[in-house]
Amino acid sequence: MKHTISALVKNRFGAVAEVTDVFRRHRVNFKSISCAETEEFDVSRLVITVENHDDQIGAVLEELKTLDSIAELDDLSRKEFVDREMALIKVGFTRESMAQVMQIFEVFRANVVGMGQETISVEITGDEDKVDGLIKMLRPHGIRSLCRTGVVALKRGDE
Amino acid sequence: MKHTISALVKNRFGAVAEVTDVFRRHRVNFKSISCAETEEFDVSRLVITVENHDDQIGAVLEELKTLDSIAELDDLSRKEFVDREMALIKVGFTRESMAQVMQIFEVFRANVVGMGQETISVEITGDEDKVDGLIKMLRPHGIRSLCRTGVVALKRGDE
Repeated sequence: MKHTISALVKNRFGAVAEVTDVFRRHRVNFKSISCAETEEFDVSRLVITVENHDDQIGAVLEELKTLDSIAELDDLSRKEFVDREMALIKVGFTRESMAQVMQIFEVFRANVVGMGQETISVEITGDEDKVDGLIKMLRPHGIRSLCRTGVVALKRGDE
Repeated sequence: MKHTISALVKNRFGAVAEVTDVFRRHRVNFKSISCAETEEFDVSRLVITVENHDDQIGAVLEELKTLDSIAELDDLSRKEFVDREMALIKVGFTRESMAQVMQIFEVFRANVVGMGQETISVEITGDEDKVDGLIKMLRPHGIRSLCRTGVVALKRGDE
């Protein structure tokens, strides 16, 4: 099962290191992590996705709750939420493949952000499946570089 | 000065924890961190942005290079690169403010991803300044929730 763990973390030295250390000690490998500033000056939003590890995840959450640097903690797997990620992809092209590559971009609504002599770079936003889908379509053309942000998520509705 | 540090990290228990621990020991607070899978099965791309800390960043990079789990390391601050981040924002609205809020979304090309009785959620992709700009415009309307992915980056051109 996939878990999406969302936390508010106080901005201070080592706060993220404390969190990642809890995962390390429980031998839980996360699939993605993202952490950036929020609307409040002194707090960052941290989102971690984990696949499998159902047995250990309860213990990890319990321990995270005891950390001073964690202000709020949610396991979004059980709640309704909007999840999105973004990826930058650099893919090879030739004169012959160009039209096909551009068509794939159009289907996935990927935006071109850069171009070289033999590669083209695009940005795509969507849920994990959409990003995976684009990557799968582009793979035969040669993916030179790929950078995913990891998932971020908001609860649905007004809450 | 702002630094954007991009690394390829081997997928194994505690790899990200090792990296964040180096920053903690040098007392360097990062602004954002994002780490997710790449096109290769066993390697993730990690991007960390740091502001200020010019004096310590050299030592941090030197120590990161010595880690077994780091396969490649770049300080993109000195290179030409495309940098982007994504944010999900939930903002309040009333019958009176609705049109104005929607206009702001249009100017920033933010996509609506959800709506409640009194809040509306959008997704925005762009460089840090663009995301900061939208947040600034929405703040008077009441930001209920904000989740940024942190910056990801690709080198420009074919490299």
